[in-house]
Amino acid sequence: MSQTLETPLLDTVDTPDDLRRLDKSQLRQFSDELRNEMIDAVGSTGGHLGSGLGVVELTVAIHYVFATPEDKLIWDVGHQAYPHKILTGRRDRIRTLRQGGGLSGFTKRTESEYDPFGAAHSSTSISAGLGFAVANKLNDRPGKAIAVIGDGAMSAGMAYEAMNNAEQAGNRLVVILNDNDMSIAPPVGGLSAYLARMVSSSEYLGLRSLASKVARKLSRRVHSSLEKAEEYTRGMVTGGTLFEELGFYYVGPIDGHNLEHLIPVLENVRDSEQGPVLVHVVTQKGKGYAPAEDSADKYHGVARFDVITGKQKKSSGGPPNYQNVFGETLAKLAESDRRICAITAAMPGGTGVDKFAQAHPDRAFDVGIAEQHGVTFAAGLAAQGMRPFAAIYSTFLQRAYDQVVHDVAIQNLPVRFAIDRAGLVGADGATHAGSFDVTYLATLPNFVVMAAADEAELVHMTYTAAEYDDGPIAFRYPRGAGVGVPLPQAPEKLEIGKGRVVRGKANGGKVAILSLGTRLHEALKAADQLEAKGLPTTVADMRFAKPLDTALVEQLTASHEVVVTIEEAAIGGLGAHVLTFASDAGLLDTGLKIRTMRLPDLFQDHDAPEKQYDEAGLNAPHIVDTVLKALRHNSAGVEEARA
Amino acid sequence: MSQTLETPLLDTVDTPDDLRRLDKSQLRQFSDELRNEMIDAVGSTGGHLGSGLGVVELTVAIHYVFATPEDKLIWDVGHQAYPHKILTGRRDRIRTLRQGGGLSGFTKRTESEYDPFGAAHSSTSISAGLGFAVANKLNDRPGKAIAVIGDGAMSAGMAYEAMNNAEQAGNRLVVILNDNDMSIAPPVGGLSAYLARMVSSSEYLGLRSLASKVARKLSRRVHSSLEKAEEYTRGMVTGGTLFEELGFYYVGPIDGHNLEHLIPVLENVRDSEQGPVLVHVVTQKGKGYAPAEDSADKYHGVARFDVITGKQKKSSGGPPNYQNVFGETLAKLAESDRRICAITAAMPGGTGVDKFAQAHPDRAFDVGIAEQHGVTFAAGLAAQGMRPFAAIYSTFLQRAYDQVVHDVAIQNLPVRFAIDRAGLVGADGATHAGSFDVTYLATLPNFVVMAAADEAELVHMTYTAAEYDDGPIAFRYPRGAGVGVPLPQAPEKLEIGKGRVVRGKANGGKVAILSLGTRLHEALKAADQLEAKGLPTTVADMRFAKPLDTALVEQLTASHEVVVTIEEAAIGGLGAHVLTFASDAGLLDTGLKIRTMRLPDLFQDHDAPEKQYDEAGLNAPHIVDTVLKALRHNSAGVEEARA
Repeated sequence: MSQTLETPLLDTVDTPDDLRRLDKSQLRQFSDELRNEMIDAVGSTGGHLGSGLGVVELTVAIHYVFATPEDKLIWDVGHQAYPHKILTGRRDRIRTLRQGGGLSGFTKRTESEYDPFGAAHSSTSISAGLGFAVANKLNDRPGKAIAVIGDGAMSAGMAYEAMNNAEQAGNRLVVILNDNDMSIAPPVGGLSAYLARMVSSSEYLGLRSLASKVARKLSRRVHSSLEKAEEYTRGMVTGGTLFEELGFYYVGPIDGHNLEHLIPVLENVRDSEQGPVLVHVVTQKGKGYAPAEDSADKYHGVARFDVITGKQKKSSGGPPNYQNVFGETLAKLAESDRRICAITAAMPGGTGVDKFAQAHPDRAFDVGIAEQHGVTFAAGLAAQGMRPFAAIYSTFLQRAYDQVVHDVAIQNLPVRFAIDRAGLVGADGATHAGSFDVTYLATLPNFVVMAAADEAELVHMTYTAAEYDDGPIAFRYPRGAGVGVPLPQAPEKLEIGKGRVVRGKANGGKVAILSLGTRLHEALKAADQLEAKGLPTTVADMRFAKPLDTALVEQLTASHEVVVTIEEAAIGGLGAHVLTFASDAGLLDTGLKIRTMRLPDLFQDHDAPEKQYDEAGLNAPHIVDTVLKALRHNSAGVEEARA
Repeated sequence: MSQTLETPLLDTVDTPDDLRRLDKSQLRQFSDELRNEMIDAVGSTGGHLGSGLGVVELTVAIHYVFATPEDKLIWDVGHQAYPHKILTGRRDRIRTLRQGGGLSGFTKRTESEYDPFGAAHSSTSISAGLGFAVANKLNDRPGKAIAVIGDGAMSAGMAYEAMNNAEQAGNRLVVILNDNDMSIAPPVGGLSAYLARMVSSSEYLGLRSLASKVARKLSRRVHSSLEKAEEYTRGMVTGGTLFEELGFYYVGPIDGHNLEHLIPVLENVRDSEQGPVLVHVVTQKGKGYAPAEDSADKYHGVARFDVITGKQKKSSGGPPNYQNVFGETLAKLAESDRRICAITAAMPGGTGVDKFAQAHPDRAFDVGIAEQHGVTFAAGLAAQGMRPFAAIYSTFLQRAYDQVVHDVAIQNLPVRFAIDRAGLVGADGATHAGSFDVTYLATLPNFVVMAAADEAELVHMTYTAAEYDDGPIAFRYPRGAGVGVPLPQAPEKLEIGKGRVVRGKANGGKVAILSLGTRLHEALKAADQLEAKGLPTTVADMRFAKPLDTALVEQLTASHEVVVTIEEAAIGGLGAHVLTFASDAGLLDTGLKIRTMRLPDLFQDHDAPEKQYDEAGLNAPHIVDTVLKALRHNSAGVEEARA
């Protein structure tokens, strides 16, 4: 496709300095070229499309008006930053987006000086921008921070905390509220309704009066009671009082696709002595690409697609996704159990909670990007006798860690945690990997922590969690397709704290592999290869990181020469719990070749999942290697083993 | 004292049912008796005084009007709930507050059916209340949830997330904003300024008109544009627009010490068909006790004191607190290093940041109860070349775990974490214990995690952190007084990832104790006792949980018969890291008696610190026991060892 694109203006621009040499009258055409280039690129790579399309003009206007990179432009979440990447010296690599070794799908400090603060989780940009602004203020350096944040991200408490602290930044901080009335899912909550009222009750200011009005507004702060009354009344027309009460100068709403409006407003904001300023910009997600504009999710995240038809190259058939299995299982269980509820934090589709919501709309709760609230809300439901499932990605549950500890674990309330995206996640990279949940949950008293080895196990664990009322219980499972095992006719209630021997004998063999989660299938492959070498191998699916099946650990350590633990989790998980139990019980006193396999101690970049597993060293050959090296190891061979 | 108190009305009331039998005209006297009883009780126990004094009338009014415990009364934080405890069947135990085996200083589900949701960390009450309200709605059961939350707690994002979701509760949720313009420290941020404007610009409604006005207000929802304009104009007078925009009916501000105002308003709110309602109540912290009213912190938390004079029974002399050592060290370092900043989340006094702020006011930032923002703000400062120290209690840092992972660790930004209240904390109990930080931080790539063994080490670690620009670094230290070692003349820059042998020889001995943090001194005591039994004992202060001093571990494991790790942290910390390294390196292959000592797998109740250590099994005798048991242990003795 790309060879047929005509992009004469874009071809002259490698960095924002080049952009700023263009005449204002050229920016419309430039934006169109930028949009087409982006559509073409994402067509060949897949990725986040709708968000980037919505901010093409905004991207151009910000870089045109502000002195990036000295002025720090911080994109919240960062998945809308593809046009920004094209504009900031990365056009030559834009068709490597989300590929191994290629550009990240989010902003990233290591990628460009134009990415002063990376992101991927939402709602961090105002806090970070405030850090830059205050540092400049302390050092009496020029340079503003511009945080661009979506209306969906505004539902997170973190954004509110930052706004509540923003006043100290003065005019060094500019917040641009990118209001597209749509983050990933339909908007949630009071703030969203408020923004909608602001936009619907007002008209965009006309071109002629816009810049001068904004300039006048920023020239002084209203304080007298009479003026305050005026301001409130005006608030009804142009909105803004909520932000003003928190200390911002509010400007807007303005049309985020109209460069003739955007440029003068941003120029005024740039030159204002007053601040911090919040500019309320209304954009349309998917803007300028008909298939995206017409789709329900505005092409939020897409597979590779045909640019002409918009048709996505979806992979065909195959086993069901874990997400669907979870959502459908829970919906089914809830038919006969009125206590089951499902909570999602703005990820109804991603978590499969949409399936539950279709069947049981009154018991499905999308709280918005508000994991903290979601978890404690679930704790309140549990305290009043419901059976809540909080379905949250592993990495996003970090947002609610204190609520998990303080509101759930300490009170021993039976909140069920369906922990999605556990382990490596491929193209989304380090920010979305679910690496730490086993460690940060299994260290908590009262917690039950399970991991599903396959989609059938996920069915059992969902049911087990539903039936478990004695305290908090979590089960983790990966992103994407299952391994293809048949789904059970009826779910089975697992015994808490009991693993299962999947292959070989618990009480005899040369090698024992203790697996937690979906690496089980690599463990079984490794067992084949080891047996082929004459090494009888037992494979156990531990199912529980906590409570640990100590009887099984005892049996396996007593009757095997080499014991290997494996999990798709960082240090502190199954391996640490097995070792701690075994050492304290004296099981290691007389010598045991015990090894732990887990995620490496680094943040792995995005890549194809197979390659990520290879880099992590968690495939069958690595297991075989670990076992053989252990067997070869003797006191003289310490050096060899550690190499 | 208590025998001289005259409390004839209070003596007739054991539960809220008894209270509701009183005539409204008796409530004034009842409140006075309740206040006196509380002052007397806290005089003998110490604890949180000012907050409880501020809500005496509110406590009486809520229980009088609402049908507790069927209506769920949820006190945010819970340290203001002493009058509530006296009223709800716990008067006979009120003089056991915060003592071992006695009443908790916070609300607690296991303590009373009148505590439907425990707390201690702030800002959870609206989310929890919403859970109760929605559960009742789903089950078509009566019963409201009443969340009482302070203005300081409103600065936390979690409260905002909950308000943003509250509309679905309808009239089943009542939020009472207890505005005393003072949480622990002076108020922070835009919201606080907003509340102050609301209160100062309005007059309390007169008694005659109050109830009828509120009733009228709750009888219909204003929607038309004209009425909206009216509402905004009124907003200027009586405030409330910010809460109304988020979906609440706003009522207030009202005088929280005037029962003749409180009771009819709450009755109207109770009977309202509309909701959710936010009642803005203005109270005075320390109300009714002159020494508290006159003190700067309104007797937020006090030692035992003399009721007549108000004089607190402070303990005398002794080593300096870790908090002061940290604050003073940092302030001194900042004299010659303009890059050093300090961030606290509403705990300037508790963390010692007040000391820093006195010397360097422009570089001290109190962000309010907003740990999420605080950490990412620090990350922004670091990205712009500053050297920020985020001084946050271990347990409160859980609030910012995702920001620690996503904004700091993944980007490898040099944010310094001064982690206060690490380990057990005595009277504040499980909710304030810092048990998990070693585990949840040391599992993260890029992180350096230190623990100070004494106050001199804290000086070195503060300096080491200041000088370390390569990535995130954390150092933990306990609550309270140091161990009494002399403070160094000049701070020393520690080598990253290197421990030190404090006693004995790294390359020879019978027993090696690897300690992280302040248990070092128990380890040294244990070594004395072991040596007396003829067991040469080496003691190492590991200093770093990450990066682990692997060379030292290798040396110690190779040359000792028994190796014990000890730390004041839950599973997943030093012990897990030592075991994981040692097993993977093959150091355990030929047998080593290795044991881990750490916090037990339960949430320990409040008690005297000595007793807590004893319960945890982390004192010198426990170390000796562990070593002797390990030495006795052989393959035949497995059962004995595990007993």
